[in-house]
This record gives sequence, structure tokens and C-alpha cells, in this order.
Amino acid sequence: MANVKFSVYPPCNVMRAFLKEIFIRTGSRVEFVDITREVEEAVRESGIRSGVAIIFTPHTTTGIFLNEDEGGLKKDLERVLERLIPGKGGYLHDEVDHNAYAHLRSIILGVSLAMPVENGGLMLGAWQSIFLAELDGPRGRRVYVKVIGSD
Amino acid sequence: MANVKFSVYPPCNVMRAFLKEIFIRTGSRVEFVDITREVEEAVRESGIRSGVAIIFTPHTTTGIFLNEDEGGLKKDLERVLERLIPGKGGYLHDEVDHNAYAHLRSIILGVSLAMPVENGGLMLGAWQSIFLAELDGPRGRRVYVKVIGSD
Amino acid sequence: MANVKFSVYPPCNVMRAFLKEIFIRTGSRVEFVDITREVEEAVRESGIRSGVAIIFTPHTTTGIFLNEDEGGLKKDLERVLERLIPGKGGYLHDEVDHNAYAHLRSIILGVSLAMPVENGGLMLGAWQSIFLAELDGPRGRRVYVKVIGSD
Repeated sequence: MANVKFSVYPPCNVMRAFLKEIFIRTGSRVEFVDITREVEEAVRESGIRSGVAIIFTPHTTTGIFLNEDEGGLKKDLERVLERLIPGKGGYLHDEVDHNAYAHLRSIILGVSLAMPVENGGLMLGAWQSIFLAELDGPRGRRVYVKVIGSD
Repeated sequence: MANVKFSVYPPCNVMRAFLKEIFIRTGSRVEFVDITREVEEAVRESGIRSGVAIIFTPHTTTGIFLNEDEGGLKKDLERVLERLIPGKGGYLHDEVDHNAYAHLRSIILGVSLAMPVENGGLMLGAWQSIFLAELDGPRGRRVYVKVIGSD
Repeated sequence: MANVKFSVYPPCNVMRAFLKEIFIRTGSRVEFVDITREVEEAVRESGIRSGVAIIFTPHTTTGIFLNEDEGGLKKDLERVLERLIPGKGGYLHDEVDHNAYAHLRSIILGVSLAMPVENGGLMLGAWQSIFLAELDGPRGRRVYVKVIGSD
């Protein structure tokens, strides 16, 4: 039996998929929350050594992006978004709800990120942090971390 | 033989990859087509229960994004794109072809989306729809749905 | 033994993950480098026939996008980025470092791309090229190509 196992097991990679939901309570109308630690923890929990991680937020007024966690830069981003897609812009959607600007900024930022996983961790660069962009808070928000790969 | 199978089969996940091409005929120059139903159908057809779906458009004047399917908001997005990247902008590429604005908007929106698949379906939020952005129509367009995961 | 192998091997897909790092030396402050050939080569090297490729840059002042490799269009994109997020914008991050504009443009362009792989190659459209956007060069830059799928 031991020989049989040995002869058939190696060609099969033990590929698996893992999912974790992260809950974040945001504190302001617009806010960029560093969720790197939570996402890295999810990848470690998955036990997957080599594969791909998808970081996804299931809302229409949030975004996901990668960049440096520096206070001045986060303020700069807030100002750039306000200049490109102003909070008050005479939007048609504001007749339904008062957050058209938040939807439009979410479309520009995107809600999904695909990253390589290697040696059991995310292949983040030295200055890269993972951010949830709250664009219509404060609210409770969710981020899904889906990891697919092999041990 | 039965015992042998039993002893080696369980560690192997039946991971598979599935591809579907979706064809969309757009009706105007700029248009945001809700393709959620078609993409969800592709994921169901794949038979994959847990994994990742990639939604990808192979054109240089289309985009893929997620947001709410509300008429006013779609008009707002059209106006925002026209303000940020005007149809007529004295672009150099317009000497080659007359659609530089459509290429530039495609770069800003992006052409690819990665999403978690769980329980045989996309993990879309309550208000999220999947859109193909037609930026230089009307034309016949393609979207690829690639699903990778296990039964 | 041969029979045993035959009876258990077919249900197991030989799913694998492959990683390649690409190094690029950029030549100017802002530059869009066509890396299609290098990424396609990585996918071929992987030997994976059907699956997903993740193209990821681990920097905070670069971006990844897909579009047409045409000289005029690349110049148009440079001008659009300069208009939307000017090099000199009185940014707070410029008190720490002098490249806030490059971080902000990276956030707008994104640093990750997920693509379907089929028949051993990327499913690129006829006019699509893969670009690394250098936003604060010239420098040595890295791009990771992670491929996951089956032979």
C-alpha cells in the first residue's frame, strides 16, 4: 500500500481554494483603511504556499487599491478624488440617493485586486499596503479574500 | 482496487478551468451594458463550486467594471468620462484613428476583473452588477469568462 | 501497478502554479514600456495550457495596463495623466518625497491584471499590448507573472 500511494500521489497537486470575510467598521465619510495585516493573516490561515489571492469588496461605494501608507499621500488622494469627481456635481443619481460621487469614485478605483502568493505570503513590494477605500461612510464594510493554490 | 482508490483519491482536489466567450452587440457610441446574467450563467455552466472567475474583454476601446445598474448613475458616468477625457481633445492618436478618447477611457476603467466564486456562484454584493463599457460603438464585442476551481 | 496508476490518475487535474520575475530598466521619468513579449514568454515557460495569469508590479509608482502600442496614443496618455494629476500639485506627500503625482497616478492605473490563459497562451485581443507604466523613473523595475492552471 505504501508503494502504491507513492506511485500515484506525486502527480496530483493538492490545489485548494480558501475564503475569508473581513469586516471593517469605517469612521468617516471618506477614508482609506490599511487592511494589509488582515489580508496577510487570511493568506496565512489558508495554508496555501503558492497560488493567487483575490481581494474583493462587494459594495458599490468602496474601492480596493495598493499604495504607500503615508498620511500626507492619503490626504492628497482624498483631494484628487474631490477634484476629479466632486462630492456635489449635479448628478442624476443624487435624485435617487445622495452618493453618486461615491459610486463614480468606486468605478475609477476598482473593487478587485489579484495578487501572487508565494512561500505562503502575498508578494507585496516593500512600500505597498492594501487599502479599502471608504467613499460613503461611516459604515460596516466587507472584504473577501479568496486564495487558490497548493500547499 | 477499491481500497487503493480510496486511499489515494481524497487528497486530490478536482481543480478545473472553464472558459466561455460571451458576444454582445452594442447599440450606441458610449454605452454601459449590464452583463451580470450572462456572466452568472457562465459560472453555473462551469460547474465549479469554489474558485475564482476572471472577466476579461479583449478590446482596446471597451472596459469592465462593477457598480449599481441605475439609469441616472449610468448617465452620470458618461458625463464624468466626457469631462475627464473629452471626445475631442486634440489627441495625437486621432491622426491614426478617430477614437483616442475611447482608448484612454478604457485604460482608466480597466479591462479585467477577478472575483471569488463560492457555492457555485459569483460573490456579488446586493447592489453590484457587472458592466461592459462600450466606448467606441456600436459594434460586436466579446467578453471572456474564465473560471478556475473545484467542484 | 500500472493498472493502479491508471485507475486513480485521471480524476486528478495536474493543476500547477508558476512564477516568473521580469526585470525592466526604464529610461525616462514617465514611460509606457510594452512588456507583452516578456509576459507571453513567461506563460510559455510555465507549460500551463489552460488557466489564469496574474501580472503584478510590486511598486507604488508604477502601473500595469492593456492597450494599443501606438506612439501617438502613448503621448496622449502622458498628457491626460499630466492634466488629471499634474506633476506639481502642491501635494502633502511631496514634503516627504517628491513623487506624490506618481503614487496618485499608480492608484488610478492599478498595479495588477488578471488574464485568461488558453492553449498555452494569453487570450490577448488583436490590438492589446501589456504595458508597464513607469511613473517616477528612470529606475529598475519588477513585474511578477504568476500562472495557475493545468497542462
